[in-house]
Amino acid sequence: MDSTILAYIAGFLDGDGSIFFQIVPRPDYKQKFQIRSSIAFYQDTRNSKILEWLKNQIGTGYIRHRKTGISDYTIVESKEVKKLLKLLKPYVRLKKEHVELGLYIFDKLENKKSNQDFLEICKLVDKFKEINYSKKRTITHETVSKSLPL
Amino acid sequence: MDSTILAYIAGFLDGDGSIFFQIVPRPDYKQKFQIRSSIAFYQDTRNSKILEWLKNQIGTGYIRHRKTGISDYTIVESKEVKKLLKLLKPYVRLKKEHVELGLYIFDKLENKKSNQDFLEICKLVDKFKEINYSKKRTITHETVSKSLPL
Repeated sequence: MDSTILAYIAGFLDGDGSIFFQIVPRPDYKQKFQIRSSIAFYQDTRNSKILEWLKNQIGTGYIRHRKTGISDYTIVESKEVKKLLKLLKPYVRLKKEHVELGLYIFDKLENKKSNQDFLEICKLVDKFKEINYSKKRTITHETVSKSLPL
Repeated sequence: MDSTILAYIAGFLDGDGSIFFQIVPRPDYKQKFQIRSSIAFYQDTRNSKILEWLKNQIGTGYIRHRKTGISDYTIVESKEVKKLLKLLKPYVRLKKEHVELGLYIFDKLENKKSNQDFLEICKLVDKFKEINYSKKRTITHETVSKSLPL
């Protein structure tokens, strides 16, 4: 992708997009929980063509049209989220900390060896929620720590 | 400005900014009304540093912090709005029609010779409101036409 295309996408993401990480329950997983990452772009459904364009450029993810009149284009596959964060890193401004912390989480995930390592990653996910000013009541590292033998 | 900076600003504007034209009453003006143009960027006040950065890049306009927790960076000086539209034109996607219609309005304004010309420009401003899906009840070309001798 051309540098002006990447810079445009970075600007669009900074303007009205979001990067977030979540801890989701996975009873069948070794650590009982999974780290899910997402990059989302939002737009009035009347302008959703721009989301189609973004999807064509990025080549993955899916678009949803909500009843509220807002559409979103979301990428959740970890490999794809990581790839996009790397590509956008030189161009994002507002979300520079998000991109850096996100890439750090991916790095830690790839090198985790123990439940303790996983718990440390969950703490980074909690930190990610803070930089997103997220107040949503969700699963935190404390929830995970209660169900994991260390 | 570097092309990736311009592309970033275009992406930010497409994501969550707006371009708009208004007809405002000016009893002391020859045509009794003035065409006012604006480019605005919005952001949560907690992230308003990015608006400062935009202002530094663009070099004009002002930032307001609203009580709603939203800040905006707005450029209203016609000469500056026109200059920025020209710079962003190669990079905007969602607002391409806005930029083109905006530049067309500026061109018409610079060449207006009669009240009839001014009224035609007011019709273009009405069209601009349509492409913005604006439902605000404001002054339209009809309002202007009632007070202008043709």
